[in-house]
Amino acid sequence: MKNDLLLQALKCETVERPPVWMMRQAGRYLPDFMKLKEKYDFFTRCQTPELATEITLMPIDQIGVDAAIIFSDILVVLQAMNIEVEMRDGIGPYIPKPINSKAALDQVILPDVVDHLDYVFEAVRMTKKELNERVPLIGFAGAPWTLLCYAVQGKSSKNFHQAKAICFEEPQMAKELLQRITITTIAYLREKVKAGADVIQLFDSWGGLLSPSDYQEFSWPYLKQIVDALSGSVPVIVFGKGCWFSLQDMSKSGAAALGIDWTCSARNARYLSGGQITLQGNFDPSRLLSPIPEIKTQVKQMINAFGKDRYIVNLGHGILPNIPVDHAKAFVDAVKEYQS
Amino acid sequence: MKNDLLLQALKCETVERPPVWMMRQAGRYLPDFMKLKEKYDFFTRCQTPELATEITLMPIDQIGVDAAIIFSDILVVLQAMNIEVEMRDGIGPYIPKPINSKAALDQVILPDVVDHLDYVFEAVRMTKKELNERVPLIGFAGAPWTLLCYAVQGKSSKNFHQAKAICFEEPQMAKELLQRITITTIAYLREKVKAGADVIQLFDSWGGLLSPSDYQEFSWPYLKQIVDALSGSVPVIVFGKGCWFSLQDMSKSGAAALGIDWTCSARNARYLSGGQITLQGNFDPSRLLSPIPEIKTQVKQMINAFGKDRYIVNLGHGILPNIPVDHAKAFVDAVKEYQS
Repeated sequence: MKNDLLLQALKCETVERPPVWMMRQAGRYLPDFMKLKEKYDFFTRCQTPELATEITLMPIDQIGVDAAIIFSDILVVLQAMNIEVEMRDGIGPYIPKPINSKAALDQVILPDVVDHLDYVFEAVRMTKKELNERVPLIGFAGAPWTLLCYAVQGKSSKNFHQAKAICFEEPQMAKELLQRITITTIAYLREKVKAGADVIQLFDSWGGLLSPSDYQEFSWPYLKQIVDALSGSVPVIVFGKGCWFSLQDMSKSGAAALGIDWTCSARNARYLSGGQITLQGNFDPSRLLSPIPEIKTQVKQMINAFGKDRYIVNLGHGILPNIPVDHAKAFVDAVKEYQS
Repeated sequence: MKNDLLLQALKCETVERPPVWMMRQAGRYLPDFMKLKEKYDFFTRCQTPELATEITLMPIDQIGVDAAIIFSDILVVLQAMNIEVEMRDGIGPYIPKPINSKAALDQVILPDVVDHLDYVFEAVRMTKKELNERVPLIGFAGAPWTLLCYAVQGKSSKNFHQAKAICFEEPQMAKELLQRITITTIAYLREKVKAGADVIQLFDSWGGLLSPSDYQEFSWPYLKQIVDALSGSVPVIVFGKGCWFSLQDMSKSGAAALGIDWTCSARNARYLSGGQITLQGNFDPSRLLSPIPEIKTQVKQMINAFGKDRYIVNLGHGILPNIPVDHAKAFVDAVKEYQS
């Protein structure tokens, strides 16, 4: 691997500077992405390995990040499980038949992931070839809890009350769905690793909606099963947005690194995670709207606060569509210019 | 005062059991509230002291909470500042002309609060009379940052990116707006206290969208000015949703109590706030969907975790419209049945 900074950081090795990548780095802020978006709908882009590969490579070539992350979506796992998912303009993900009853749950299958999701594995293989060992390739999946949120609520939501309602009114049904998602996700990620993913990131985007005790009941046990299942294969990064209260458990789970959102300071994150594990984050995506000199100053402060080792520079959540490309590039450049 | 449990808890006195009230306790889960809602629109209910009084008293008589909170809205302060606010079905608060330019900011006035908001003070006086010293009456206001979110974004939002954009792109303009809101809020709350409010609660509903350093820049200094201005008059409760990272500063501010949301455990809340100050919270509002026996068990566990003294039982955010009345009542009853 020509640039293996990410892998070094995940092994807690001493580095010249920390690696940097951005969640949603192949996204709507990139003009070339928008050109493809006009021509092909969302799932066509996901399901066509040539398109997914082309999109995945854009930020490597144009922004200069230290890792690629395969262009896909966490909801493809639900699709494979016989849950229809659409991407609607102005709404985002939309599930016409939400899994909010036992009858609906009966329709949810444990799929053969190679039959249903080979387009993802093919995209991984193709991207690995095109990358030609320039930087590592990250594969990913959603946490079972986060996928349940969409499957039950039917679309995105500020607080996913209907998803939480199922958990609190029908906990056994919720746990059955969580377990099926977990089994499918493990099979899916094993194939992704077989296809060539060097690192896996797990996204618990809605974990922060649960109380710490409910997180222990409805999210963490399922995430932990996935981390365990991947143990010994590739490094796993666990990112739970708003899950500062779970950093201690996560740090002891066998994960190689933990993602941190911008509401948790470097100091708190190091304290809560025990000070040893590699951390990743946590620039407020909105802060990329600041003038470029201020972005550069804040990135330097952030690296100083986390420390250059056992650290992966990233945003605290996905990059926003309205960020100017030169601001995104300034963020990455600031890391490359870093002198401790 | 016949039932002064709330005031005792705010003075850190030893109590038989903790007091209990619920954010949005006079809300849509109450059938009598829905009857009034069908007849009068939102701001008519706010602006008619007889209606505001009737609504404020409903949960005292029907649910048996230990405090009343005046029925009103945090956005009446923006209205007084010459910012038009509507309440639209399916959208919620809507500001037709958001304050997203210097020209818009020029239209924002520092009002005479008695001229513009006397209906609130009249509702407080009328409610005090009707309450006849049964329980204390809480007055409230939004944090300047939370009001800026609505004023700039123009409506509610998952992440208030446009409001944050103004702060990061035009910080001086944002701070000018924050300062004007602060000045108006101080005048407003002083009049509310003069009218008879026994306690003031400040709601920073969107504080948790900021990083700790941005919270220090765009929210906390303005909240602190309000706490200082009320010092020596009535006890102030500061509730910042998602603001666990600021509990230490808040605990040293002169506030009498701090509100806690459900993502911060009792143990973390006591630790972060230094262990001395009265805390209020933090039952997940969605958890009121659980079966009644489970609600009662969890309330007992919550009181044991916080401790019965220096503690006010509440939800971690407002009660949801779809909560059955008997579940809300079970929550309150569980506190009254508490035996340490």
